[in-house]
Amino acid sequence: MATRQQVAERAGVSVAVVSYVLNNRKIVKEETRRKVLEAIRELGYRPNQTARSLKTKQTRQIAVLIHYIGNPFEAGLLLHIEATAKRHGYFIFVQTYEPAREEELRAMLIGRVDGVLLLGHALAAESLDDFRALGIPVVSAMQPADGAADASTDGTAGGTTGEAGLPSIDVDWQPAMRRLIRHLREQGHTRIAFMTDATPGSPLGVRAAAFASALGDEGLTPATSPLDGGGRFERARETLDDRLATQPAPAFTALVCANDLMAAGCLAACRDRGRRVPQELAIAGCEDILMSSQTDPPLTAIHYPRQAAGEQAMEMLLAAIAKTPIAGARLPGELIVRGSTSIR
Amino acid sequence: MATRQQVAERAGVSVAVVSYVLNNRKIVKEETRRKVLEAIRELGYRPNQTARSLKTKQTRQIAVLIHYIGNPFEAGLLLHIEATAKRHGYFIFVQTYEPAREEELRAMLIGRVDGVLLLGHALAAESLDDFRALGIPVVSAMQPADGAADASTDGTAGGTTGEAGLPSIDVDWQPAMRRLIRHLREQGHTRIAFMTDATPGSPLGVRAAAFASALGDEGLTPATSPLDGGGRFERARETLDDRLATQPAPAFTALVCANDLMAAGCLAACRDRGRRVPQELAIAGCEDILMSSQTDPPLTAIHYPRQAAGEQAMEMLLAAIAKTPIAGARLPGELIVRGSTSIR
Repeated sequence: MATRQQVAERAGVSVAVVSYVLNNRKIVKEETRRKVLEAIRELGYRPNQTARSLKTKQTRQIAVLIHYIGNPFEAGLLLHIEATAKRHGYFIFVQTYEPAREEELRAMLIGRVDGVLLLGHALAAESLDDFRALGIPVVSAMQPADGAADASTDGTAGGTTGEAGLPSIDVDWQPAMRRLIRHLREQGHTRIAFMTDATPGSPLGVRAAAFASALGDEGLTPATSPLDGGGRFERARETLDDRLATQPAPAFTALVCANDLMAAGCLAACRDRGRRVPQELAIAGCEDILMSSQTDPPLTAIHYPRQAAGEQAMEMLLAAIAKTPIAGARLPGELIVRGSTSIR
Repeated sequence: MATRQQVAERAGVSVAVVSYVLNNRKIVKEETRRKVLEAIRELGYRPNQTARSLKTKQTRQIAVLIHYIGNPFEAGLLLHIEATAKRHGYFIFVQTYEPAREEELRAMLIGRVDGVLLLGHALAAESLDDFRALGIPVVSAMQPADGAADASTDGTAGGTTGEAGLPSIDVDWQPAMRRLIRHLREQGHTRIAFMTDATPGSPLGVRAAAFASALGDEGLTPATSPLDGGGRFERARETLDDRLATQPAPAFTALVCANDLMAAGCLAACRDRGRRVPQELAIAGCEDILMSSQTDPPLTAIHYPRQAAGEQAMEMLLAAIAKTPIAGARLPGELIVRGSTSIR
């Protein structure tokens, strides 16, 4: 079992400097910090938790990483994540994550937070290692996409732990997608397309994989390769608008969007082009955000239970912080049928 | 000019402890920290900035306090606040603020952030004093409501500095409200009501005051006292639903809502009660969030320029951190006319 002394020797620093790094003291140069963290990783050093808890107070702070501050779905999750943290006496810091700033973010969080909650982000292995080495648990609300997402044939690849054993809470997408597809078939659709966010590592990839798999289970094949709506309203609107402009007789009569911002954008594109929904194109989303019940027509959507998901994700992280055993979970995604797919 | 030594004597601690407090070292007991901060305030002590900057690195972190994570308007501001911070190499921490946890939040932020950006919050004078004493600038996106908001007759009470000299960026509400009221008059309305958030300290109070003042300028009086929609969709929906149920012949034919979440809630209430908008009730909002252009009918709204406001608020804070002179600003709020007020 590696000791703090061995870490110091390997990194070529004093034991005091190793302690500074473990407590994220600002006086340590970034270069030195990197050397020490590398040594910690290479030696598999685990800080003596009892000794540390005697010396360092918990911060009672948790970092929650998000993708896009403008996404009402993420805001909905945050609402319940925060309420749960508050009930247990914790503060949360919300931060937008991007890979280019990951190392900087990592250095900033270490020593400042007791745990990290991701929203399906694919953190670099190095970050996960650092957090683990320093006793900072990481869990995920939404199953992280992993590199094998495209190859996987079912939405539950990795079960409830996704990549690198990261526990997560998410909707059980496979059965939810099947319910949605069956509903569309009942409305007469067999040529059904999917719109996703093609950005590598996007958690929407999990939903895309589940859709493709569920389509196969229902004996259908995708009407066309997935459309890329970039996860955003405006981008989705432009993508579908292009498609409608260049293909007057579209390859699909129904379109499922991986998130509701995109579904609303597609609805807007149809409105702008005078295409009637659902008569000429049926549209559905996968979240049921507030806006989805307020559009014209209102959007059919899989209901993502944000309160349950947010609460359970935070409870899971708090349990990990308390060093009790944790496990991810899959929640049911009920189908809410509205006017964007149902003519009645 | 007070010295660190004098602060130490007054607080009954050593100079070293005063330094620990200035650098928010965790080893200082909360009680001791309080004593030292009180002494700093009472003596008007200002840390020697040059000496401090030699000793302490900037954190390059900024705290942004928000009201409600589920409010798309605040999310829209945050988008641009964050993009601007990032351009300048800063990270932002987003935190929901509530008065009950203010002291805890304050203790947590001191030493961890270079500046604090409020979204119109009315922080306790004690917090503002502490931040000021410790050289942490505080500015506001949205003019903070102050205690005199009800008594003021114009929306620009306090000019661009609001309460306690806090610089702010906001829409120039008075002319914007007049434009909206003139539009409603052109549509035949003279009995116009306002829906706000009656919570004390809500920044929506600034908009309510501007509306009342603009109404007077247009020679009208409020059709009824302001409705309380609590700033939220569901609460607004219930409030208007109650009103429609108990007053079949309403006292007003047009309703201006201080934020768009409430305007959408009111639209939903009319839809549920079979009241045609705008024929039986015209509804308008004050922000023009995404949802407002997607409802049925789409909502007339004052357009709050979130990109300009978010960028300028962050630029202002960064300038304050760099110790260059700053001033607040008022931005134009263009009127976007849509189907919720205009029959054509």
